[in-house]
Amino acid sequence: MVVCDSKSEGRAQGRAQRKWENNGSHHRKDVVPDLECWCISRGGCMQAHFGEEKELRQRFMAPPVSGLRELRRRRRELRSRMELLIMETQAEMCRALADLDPGASFAIDSWERKEGGGGISCVLQDGEVFEKAGVNVSVVSGLLSEEAARQMRSRGKSLKAKDGKLPFCAMGVSSVIHPKNPHVPTMHFNYRYFEIEEADGTKQWWFGGGTDLTPTYLNEEDAIHFHKTLKEACDKHDLKLYPKYKKWCDDYFYIKHRGERRGIGGIFFDDMNSPSKEEVFQFVKSCAKAVVPCYIPIVKKHCHDSFTPEEKLWQQLRRGRYVEFNLLYDRGTKFGLLTPGSRIESILMSLPLTARWEYMHNPPESSKEAEILEVLRNPKDWVH
Amino acid sequence: MVVCDSKSEGRAQGRAQRKWENNGSHHRKDVVPDLECWCISRGGCMQAHFGEEKELRQRFMAPPVSGLRELRRRRRELRSRMELLIMETQAEMCRALADLDPGASFAIDSWERKEGGGGISCVLQDGEVFEKAGVNVSVVSGLLSEEAARQMRSRGKSLKAKDGKLPFCAMGVSSVIHPKNPHVPTMHFNYRYFEIEEADGTKQWWFGGGTDLTPTYLNEEDAIHFHKTLKEACDKHDLKLYPKYKKWCDDYFYIKHRGERRGIGGIFFDDMNSPSKEEVFQFVKSCAKAVVPCYIPIVKKHCHDSFTPEEKLWQQLRRGRYVEFNLLYDRGTKFGLLTPGSRIESILMSLPLTARWEYMHNPPESSKEAEILEVLRNPKDWVH
Repeated sequence: MVVCDSKSEGRAQGRAQRKWENNGSHHRKDVVPDLECWCISRGGCMQAHFGEEKELRQRFMAPPVSGLRELRRRRRELRSRMELLIMETQAEMCRALADLDPGASFAIDSWERKEGGGGISCVLQDGEVFEKAGVNVSVVSGLLSEEAARQMRSRGKSLKAKDGKLPFCAMGVSSVIHPKNPHVPTMHFNYRYFEIEEADGTKQWWFGGGTDLTPTYLNEEDAIHFHKTLKEACDKHDLKLYPKYKKWCDDYFYIKHRGERRGIGGIFFDDMNSPSKEEVFQFVKSCAKAVVPCYIPIVKKHCHDSFTPEEKLWQQLRRGRYVEFNLLYDRGTKFGLLTPGSRIESILMSLPLTARWEYMHNPPESSKEAEILEVLRNPKDWVH
Repeated sequence: MVVCDSKSEGRAQGRAQRKWENNGSHHRKDVVPDLECWCISRGGCMQAHFGEEKELRQRFMAPPVSGLRELRRRRRELRSRMELLIMETQAEMCRALADLDPGASFAIDSWERKEGGGGISCVLQDGEVFEKAGVNVSVVSGLLSEEAARQMRSRGKSLKAKDGKLPFCAMGVSSVIHPKNPHVPTMHFNYRYFEIEEADGTKQWWFGGGTDLTPTYLNEEDAIHFHKTLKEACDKHDLKLYPKYKKWCDDYFYIKHRGERRGIGGIFFDDMNSPSKEEVFQFVKSCAKAVVPCYIPIVKKHCHDSFTPEEKLWQQLRRGRYVEFNLLYDRGTKFGLLTPGSRIESILMSLPLTARWEYMHNPPESSKEAEILEVLRNPKDWVH
């Protein structure tokens, strides 16, 4: 009945064994082999060799949830290739962040979900450059509750459940980076894959995801770089994708009661299941590969900028809006909190370390604060 | 069609005229006459005299939303008496807070709601004693949207609407006090009255409200004083009320995903419409009169206590949980944000000035932090 069964090697190994030491291997960029290559070349081998485990340690932050043996066994299935992609994206991002904040270290937690599956949470907190940076992978499966299914249905999926329950498998990589310096924007990305089995045995699948930027102050050059990098990733697949998903992003991250967006957008999509599984996967892969190049250069450029206490205060007020969006509107947060056995700390890792709410705070006209508010109220086209 | 019509004198006067100067009159406690007395003695008079306005200035924070003339005209109606009670409760609380934080001053905003009614928001921010203290009055009327009506129905009221709309009138006083010192607890109270007209002309009415305490650290003596004062207010009316509403409070302020309550409770009730309008009003009046005596002595006792940076940090983490409850679960906040034309700044005034979220913060066993968590996880009976 269950679409993805991840109760294999990964779970059998248990939490303790799956928890690797953070031995600094995530600084080594040179040893990441090609994803498909790695799968195929080791396809026939049912045992993990010493050398292979070493390679894995260098490649990922922790062993994959589904376990190496299981991933190898079903290496041509999309769920296995997606699991490797999200693991690799997690490691790429963590390495890039660690390079910029060498004094800080990632807490790496491998966790299991009683109802099926688990995840790997990597969180860097109170560093020199980053206030809080979390990069999570989760691969969960089991039966979807009616309430959680409703959350999905609202996205346009009509799903026929058997006895009110739907066997499902969901996996994704999700990240929120809150830097200390108010001139370095907050960034969020998430790429996910769902499989659901309906009452008649039909398997529904779809991808979702997005990457978006939340600056405290507007820097047009950064905004253009960010959007351009995402556009290039989209354009490789279809020229219609970037404009469509840019608009979806502006619409999704809307803080209705404030009449403003959370940030200056990026791309956002959901329910993506055409033209084909393979083509959508390749598109998602391009997006995931764009995460580091669209954001890290901006961090490098500004992380040593000087700033005033007033600028820090404005950043804290914007962090407050970030919290408002995530707790009041974000479907991912709601879906997570409603999913039985979900890991609260990983879901709420998206919240900033600190935030502020002032009564009736209104920046003066023509100020730098008013400038960003204008863009949050009336989204701009950055690449045309 | 509209049950309460507050488009009378108050609105005609316009916002500018209704905005009084905060001339320190709220420090004068000696001039508050008895509520019913004031209404009846001036009942026959249709004009505001100079002396009367002076008395009002001393009594309230700003002129009542419905206007003096209208309140006098329908002085025996419950909605008028309730409006005066919430105005008086606002002023009593503001005076008590200002006495404790003499350097700080209240921002007093009278606002109008395009769709009908308005309110008076009093907010003290970044004082010596209080980080943020807000006391709001709102008296709104108009047509309830289907979505907002659903929020009410979920509380057990089945309402038959005409063309999907329900004429309504809602008024209340609502307050959240966040002190600076981590040894002074946060306090919240809210007393409200609703009237709704159904499709067949039937008028539904009910009261709701509550007062609850959110300490950063547990002080048993304070907890007992707080609950005892509330119990005494309830016991005057019916001995069954305190135990029932104490439990309702523990159940309501439950942060489900954390498995803990927001604070150490108090009383909470909703949909209260028996034994009679008059008796419920008298009960609500007793509760409103208990707000200052249940809380202010605790502030006086601890506002000069010394504290460590670690204690301040724990306070900030608890503030984070406060934000989680208010944005994820609080029905009042959701109802407010869904009501068209509602005043966002007054609704979100309940959020603290600053809050903090740390990944995987777990206080050590037997610490003072673990002590309060235990009580938040397993509510105690404080007065038996």
